[in-house]
Amino acid sequence: MNRLALAAGLLLGAVSAHAAEGMWTPDNLPLAELKARYHFAPTAAWIAHAQHAALRLAGGCSGSFVSPNGLVLTNHHCVNSCVQQLSSAEHDFIQSGFYAREEKDEIKCPEIELNRLDTITDVTARVKQATAGKSGEDYSKAEKAVKSEIEKECVGGDAAHTRCDVVSLYHGGVYDVYKYHRYQDVRLVFAPELAMAFFGGDPDNFNFPRYDLDMGVLRAWENDKPAQVKDYFPFSRNGAAEGELTITVGNPGGTDRQLTIAQLETTRDVDTLHRLLLLAEERGVLEQFRSQGAEPWRIAESDLFFVENSFKALKGRLEALQDPEVFNFKRKQEAELRAWVDADPARKAKYGAAWDEIARAQLTWRNLSVPYSFIERGLGFGSKYFGYARALVRGAEERRKPNAERLREFTDSALPSVEQRLFSTAPVYPEFEKVKLAWSLTKLREWLGADDPFVREVLGKESPEALAGRLIAGTKLGDPTVRRALWNDGGDAVAKSDDPFIALARRIDGEARAIRKRYENEVESVIDKNSELIAAARFEKYGTSVYPDATFTQRFSFGEVKGWEEHGKWIEPFTTLGGAFARATGFDPFKLPQSWLDARERLNLAQRFNFVTTNDIIGGNSGSPMINRDGEIVGLVFDGNIESLGGDFWFDERVNRTVAVHSGAILEALHKVYKAERLAKELEAARKR
Amino acid sequence: MNRLALAAGLLLGAVSAHAAEGMWTPDNLPLAELKARYHFAPTAAWIAHAQHAALRLAGGCSGSFVSPNGLVLTNHHCVNSCVQQLSSAEHDFIQSGFYAREEKDEIKCPEIELNRLDTITDVTARVKQATAGKSGEDYSKAEKAVKSEIEKECVGGDAAHTRCDVVSLYHGGVYDVYKYHRYQDVRLVFAPELAMAFFGGDPDNFNFPRYDLDMGVLRAWENDKPAQVKDYFPFSRNGAAEGELTITVGNPGGTDRQLTIAQLETTRDVDTLHRLLLLAEERGVLEQFRSQGAEPWRIAESDLFFVENSFKALKGRLEALQDPEVFNFKRKQEAELRAWVDADPARKAKYGAAWDEIARAQLTWRNLSVPYSFIERGLGFGSKYFGYARALVRGAEERRKPNAERLREFTDSALPSVEQRLFSTAPVYPEFEKVKLAWSLTKLREWLGADDPFVREVLGKESPEALAGRLIAGTKLGDPTVRRALWNDGGDAVAKSDDPFIALARRIDGEARAIRKRYENEVESVIDKNSELIAAARFEKYGTSVYPDATFTQRFSFGEVKGWEEHGKWIEPFTTLGGAFARATGFDPFKLPQSWLDARERLNLAQRFNFVTTNDIIGGNSGSPMINRDGEIVGLVFDGNIESLGGDFWFDERVNRTVAVHSGAILEALHKVYKAERLAKELEAARKR
Repeated sequence: MNRLALAAGLLLGAVSAHAAEGMWTPDNLPLAELKARYHFAPTAAWIAHAQHAALRLAGGCSGSFVSPNGLVLTNHHCVNSCVQQLSSAEHDFIQSGFYAREEKDEIKCPEIELNRLDTITDVTARVKQATAGKSGEDYSKAEKAVKSEIEKECVGGDAAHTRCDVVSLYHGGVYDVYKYHRYQDVRLVFAPELAMAFFGGDPDNFNFPRYDLDMGVLRAWENDKPAQVKDYFPFSRNGAAEGELTITVGNPGGTDRQLTIAQLETTRDVDTLHRLLLLAEERGVLEQFRSQGAEPWRIAESDLFFVENSFKALKGRLEALQDPEVFNFKRKQEAELRAWVDADPARKAKYGAAWDEIARAQLTWRNLSVPYSFIERGLGFGSKYFGYARALVRGAEERRKPNAERLREFTDSALPSVEQRLFSTAPVYPEFEKVKLAWSLTKLREWLGADDPFVREVLGKESPEALAGRLIAGTKLGDPTVRRALWNDGGDAVAKSDDPFIALARRIDGEARAIRKRYENEVESVIDKNSELIAAARFEKYGTSVYPDATFTQRFSFGEVKGWEEHGKWIEPFTTLGGAFARATGFDPFKLPQSWLDARERLNLAQRFNFVTTNDIIGGNSGSPMINRDGEIVGLVFDGNIESLGGDFWFDERVNRTVAVHSGAILEALHKVYKAERLAKELEAARKR
Repeated sequence: MNRLALAAGLLLGAVSAHAAEGMWTPDNLPLAELKARYHFAPTAAWIAHAQHAALRLAGGCSGSFVSPNGLVLTNHHCVNSCVQQLSSAEHDFIQSGFYAREEKDEIKCPEIELNRLDTITDVTARVKQATAGKSGEDYSKAEKAVKSEIEKECVGGDAAHTRCDVVSLYHGGVYDVYKYHRYQDVRLVFAPELAMAFFGGDPDNFNFPRYDLDMGVLRAWENDKPAQVKDYFPFSRNGAAEGELTITVGNPGGTDRQLTIAQLETTRDVDTLHRLLLLAEERGVLEQFRSQGAEPWRIAESDLFFVENSFKALKGRLEALQDPEVFNFKRKQEAELRAWVDADPARKAKYGAAWDEIARAQLTWRNLSVPYSFIERGLGFGSKYFGYARALVRGAEERRKPNAERLREFTDSALPSVEQRLFSTAPVYPEFEKVKLAWSLTKLREWLGADDPFVREVLGKESPEALAGRLIAGTKLGDPTVRRALWNDGGDAVAKSDDPFIALARRIDGEARAIRKRYENEVESVIDKNSELIAAARFEKYGTSVYPDATFTQRFSFGEVKGWEEHGKWIEPFTTLGGAFARATGFDPFKLPQSWLDARERLNLAQRFNFVTTNDIIGGNSGSPMINRDGEIVGLVFDGNIESLGGDFWFDERVNRTVAVHSGAILEALHKVYKAERLAKELEAARKR
């Protein structure tokens, strides 16, 4: 029995030769099904090539190499922050778009890191051995220590170019270490106007038919030269036909398809609900802030996009969780497995208590979630300045410890990412930060209560507005050279700094760490340990090959171009460039940019623009290449339909759809709208390798 | 068996001689329990006096007469809108407070109507006869027609001074007509500064200990003189002692203690959730609008209070509905009643289908609730202008019809309230209206979808912001004389008006009425009819005397002054004036007004300020008199504790508490802080009747 077989059978019979369901790890593709359903038999070389041509954007997206010179294709909404960070009141690339006419015009994105997945190594035995027989704090410490050790060995001293993450698959059924090539010199090559990238805006988000050029082009650089890469995807001008096999290679962020009922209930009643209520209010604040003028509009844009996108996604997720039919199905699944476990005394002794243990941890979490979110996760201190201060204060303390004893985000393998964010040259807007900080401090007081000792410690007698104003007026952390100096000093400067944000971060760190410790010892470790047991029980009972819940690591999905029926109406799978002109109203968010209005006569309006497929994706897959069996890019994944939002919990091939930009539309727009010949030619040259 | 006995037994054994639970109609007080528990035996005269001294504020609050000259005591938050409407940038009575030194300084509130409940008449037989054997549209029409007829007869042509409402109690177990004396000339006498009325603001709202002077004083006028009233409550300087019986007489707005499980699920998953998400976002918009300057702050204040108060109340309500224990209890109750019904073939034939019918209506409602709320209830057109336009357009059409065929809000009995709101001289702020309208149009598009035909009809090619700007730039409906002229014209002027809001209201009225008709025929009438059946089944099975769900009509509740245990800590029932000074920080909302800082030395800081009792109240009870067995005011109800928010669904005497201002604190403040001797003397003279 090899390790892939070990991972099998963890989802309950949901996979058949006719299902597009599945987010498959590259080392465990459903080869038999691919052959049966699509007559497709990828070779090991084909798979390795796709694995190495695909990329992860460490901030939460996917992408791929599309030329041997390190050219990278992803979504506009994945490079939106960078475009905004490179903009100013004078040059607003969000509005105007961006194109580097020559290689020297490509500008470095201050906070983008690319990861190419080079190797996967099974470390299950080593991790399980380290935690065997432990529980609570012992378990938590042992698990973190062994992960940090493995990662350090894997990085081998070259953290600047190598990133290693221990990944828990099947909720602890398998542990792998993923070794990535790390690129931190990533430059912006092209981005269309937001109005075209996100045509239809929030109203059309997660909807279809759709007309978005949601693309952004980056380039990985190394040693001040374009990175040379062996594996990349060439472009298909024709794209995919209806019914054709489409393959996505990306990094779905997370799914909850294997959670227990108790976990799903907490997700529904606590986590998702709280998040939605806070997002809704923050959205109102940002909307009104933005309406105050052109510059506020520009400054708030990328925050508002993030908030609106999250809100819509989470609202769909909550509605899915409220569907009694689905919950009953999950309940029945769980009851069956538990009945089978309980039927045998040995199995019962081994696995029987796991569900109740997880349920108990949920009760602890319900009490802990508000302080954990607001204090340790920083929700109550919503400002870049606080983020910098926290990283400096904790970084100083953690870096003095041995690697295996540090907080996981400060291990040697993780430090380059921390430093990239901390040293970022992206502008910080004090007025905007003040609005966000004052608001989040108000929420801190509201959710913890005005008489909570922590709230009193933070606010003293001040109001949230007064405190936010005072902190921001006094800080120097908006200057990256100040941050860099404090970080490089190694600790003393941070300990002595009278910067008000650093003083605040120092003052609350004890309480924040105490809450984190409670979370790790009483919630996380209990869930980890008992999820492993449930994973093992599932394996004993079920035998077919399945895929693990998503973990923001590389996954392949296999589907086909296909419409679906919505409210009794068949939705065709393709839209055309002409459709965008028909949908335009002249008012934001249905206002086409001038470049497109000017290009109208030149464009082939029948060119396919966006399309849908049955691929199984989720947030994190944004920017994923969609390739055909020949490994050519036929599309660029940028969204799912509304029905796909239940994909967190299950996959329904009848209605769940991935939305992509057609490869032909990308080439058409680059040639005829943007006259981006340097870029278009590089893509087409790659095509003719 | 009298009609009160008929109403008995509808709640399932929740009432005992030891429970403070119950919102009792004046014609059905729990006399035996009062005697057993409190040795209190109110006479018919005592009850009639209390009934007539208490008042309803038609906008959604309670109050009471406190002098023979029509002086009325209620909450600041019940007169807050009036205070704001009477304010301007130059005179901000929200900030400064208001006091009419002489009678001639009392200013009319443009939108306050007081109702004194004069008589209650049982009309159950007449209503049931009219609807017997009917269902769907027939049922709905017949029910509305008979109600409108009864009300018209009751009003007897004097709608200006008489208001009659047919009230359905016990979900259709009993129908009564409530005859009120109507006061529309209501003048503002006194209001403290918001900073003192709402000291602690949103953070302390629904919390205790508390330090709020949440009082407002009005006077009913008739024929340009103070109204002379026979029944009023004198003030008790000492208030109530710990453990003493306290009685509230007020108008709880609504409870859901007798809903079916299917209805509770809809309340939880649809109605409450949607409302919360919208309130949260509106809150953010208003917060940020307000922060733009002193005048925006003043203009948005009362809207923001309403939104924050509703948000906090509904969040508590949702959390109560998420408590699995409570839901299981409700489920068990329902299962027991249904099992009992099904056990007998005759009963099953008569009542057995009622629950499933209601459940089916819930499914219809789930599909209908968004268009109904946004289109018919006007959520998508959040602006005073639209409210005026809708009243004018519908009023013109409805007033041409016979009384019994009109929409219920335009019957002869209802018209004076419509006219009061329409002719209101309260200022309208175009810039603020524009923000609210643009936002709500955006939500209309979001919740119905950008491609919904209604949304397309409303927006055309415009953006919500552009449409809102155009409508508001072109309207004259901000001027009450324009509205009055259009209303008095009787229809032609409205039909021909090119005011953009009237044109919009005309254009969408067909669709709005169609949705309302679907709601009334497929949801409301089904629920009404089948709730009546369930009420009858309950009566057959259970026999003890109970109270109906709240209906914003007069109810008595009986409790006592008592602390409670919260998170293992005993909360004392009283606070003192001194406590307010201890809690003050100098920053809003914990900033005491200058008048109080100046008066500190003069004040008796040991004077009790706020206190809690076990009375069973809910939203709508704000401003209720809290009296002792001698009919003296010992307190002024203004809030419930956080634990009381579950009171929508059940009453838990261990933790559910009413929060009131102490009568002695009111007198102390009037004398020593506000030097409002004219007012204080009138209250004290009434005390010594």
